[in-house]
Amino acid sequence: MLLGPGDDAAILKAPDGRVVVSTDLLIEGRHFRRDWSSGYDIGRKAAAQNLSDIVAMGADPTAIVVGLGLPGDAPTDWLDALTDGFRDECALVEATVAGGDIARSDIVVLGVTALGDLGGRAPVTRSGARPGQIVAIAGRLGHAAAGLALLQAGRTEPGRADTGQVEPGRAESSREYVGRLVDAHRRPEPPYACGPQAARLGATAMLDVSDGLIQDVGHIAAASGVRISLDPDALPVPAILAEAAAELGADPLEWVLTGGDDHALAATFPDDVRLPPPWRIVGRVTEGEGVQVTGRSETMGGWDHFRE
Amino acid sequence: MLLGPGDDAAILKAPDGRVVVSTDLLIEGRHFRRDWSSGYDIGRKAAAQNLSDIVAMGADPTAIVVGLGLPGDAPTDWLDALTDGFRDECALVEATVAGGDIARSDIVVLGVTALGDLGGRAPVTRSGARPGQIVAIAGRLGHAAAGLALLQAGRTEPGRADTGQVEPGRAESSREYVGRLVDAHRRPEPPYACGPQAARLGATAMLDVSDGLIQDVGHIAAASGVRISLDPDALPVPAILAEAAAELGADPLEWVLTGGDDHALAATFPDDVRLPPPWRIVGRVTEGEGVQVTGRSETMGGWDHFRE
Repeated sequence: MLLGPGDDAAILKAPDGRVVVSTDLLIEGRHFRRDWSSGYDIGRKAAAQNLSDIVAMGADPTAIVVGLGLPGDAPTDWLDALTDGFRDECALVEATVAGGDIARSDIVVLGVTALGDLGGRAPVTRSGARPGQIVAIAGRLGHAAAGLALLQAGRTEPGRADTGQVEPGRAESSREYVGRLVDAHRRPEPPYACGPQAARLGATAMLDVSDGLIQDVGHIAAASGVRISLDPDALPVPAILAEAAAELGADPLEWVLTGGDDHALAATFPDDVRLPPPWRIVGRVTEGEGVQVTGRSETMGGWDHFRE
Repeated sequence: MLLGPGDDAAILKAPDGRVVVSTDLLIEGRHFRRDWSSGYDIGRKAAAQNLSDIVAMGADPTAIVVGLGLPGDAPTDWLDALTDGFRDECALVEATVAGGDIARSDIVVLGVTALGDLGGRAPVTRSGARPGQIVAIAGRLGHAAAGLALLQAGRTEPGRADTGQVEPGRAESSREYVGRLVDAHRRPEPPYACGPQAARLGATAMLDVSDGLIQDVGHIAAASGVRISLDPDALPVPAILAEAAAELGADPLEWVLTGGDDHALAATFPDDVRLPPPWRIVGRVTEGEGVQVTGRSETMGGWDHFRE
């Protein structure tokens, strides 16, 4: 960062000579609830979903700027926790909080813009998938959806302290999966390093899964003019998802296929690529259009945050 | 623009190797009213206030990205007019609308981020003013404040058509100043070219006047560790401001000194600079602190948009 907060604008290094930019608006009651997530968690999540868009282009995030709408009665320590969350999430990718703007608002509104640098690499768009290539994912799928389903079923765990520390004794809960999945809703863990890594490995198309795997790889299919076939047997369904699904009478694979907000990366690669972990091959690119899930109908919907 | 809307992020040229970035959040009822401004005007204004922050650094705007919160019942043609407004304001500075995000919201929320390129120039911050230098402004002052005062007094003129064209016969109104000042509230006209020009002329500090001249040059005084003395006799008080003030029983100089939202530029220069129009010398930098207006108290407040 060459010039930070306090002037009309911030100034950032853009050594590549190109700058990658993405923006999202997060609105209280639509994208987060202050009774379900701490200020710190909301800051982490708001930063994460924008930084994830930058790495999904194969770029390295450099900074975020934040427009913040705040009610007059928002406590100062809530705002401090929020900004700590922005800062700590950015620190994971060595990015900075370069500036912002605060306005009065009846509800909390966060306008987050992330910037990144391509480091000389070609950007990985959505349009380069070709028949014969493989589809791979990195990062969690369905965890945030399961956590939201638990919260919506009234399974509100004790919140994190605003420091972001898990409270003592929390991990020893007899229903550990509840806390872990609710935390996944509160605070995604995008596989940041996998974005630039995929670009170096020759990814032909990539995006971050924010609206559900089927819906999002559908964007690759549409932009590339191909069909994407997903193999459900290749998709990860960890034990904690199966446990939560058993409790709620849900289908864990449904969460994996349609749940949003985890910000996994989905990418296509030439079929001779050697993918290191955590990349996992989950399907193939073929001629045609749309998304096909072996053994399932194609009509499964996408992710609608709190509105289903 | 190297990659526009439709992917996870946009990609812009940053030939300077540095990128200038600024963000603002505009909230319905706080920063604009849909019954006072058309969608087109709101788009123009939202873009203008962010582009103005970029030129106030001495940079050339390259693009904006927009996060848009919209009620479900917002008419499609209103949204079209808004995006036309973004596009047309950006076109004034050869910038593009590079991308965006739409979320559902109970009220209209606009998160606008503008980017710019310094073209090899040093940025003009707020901290370079030194005693002995002159203070100059470019652009309108007090017009938007007068227009808002007219609207608040019930002087709602017929709105513009959403095309941005003044309606036929409007200019022939017997109270032409009402229309012109209300338009100034609806759609600022920042002196965009004057920002990079000031950088080339050796400006030592600069900002855009969004919260009122006194308050904003106060930011230069604070950041530079100097006192700024403004000469009210040098400030422009056009006839239309005097006419509106007479109608409302207001003081036109008060609007000029404290009115926001016109996005004039205020800058300091070495005292031997030869400033071309529309730059106008309005004061001097001295030792000390704060802002002094000859013949006035220093306690005049700043601009609070709709909340006074």
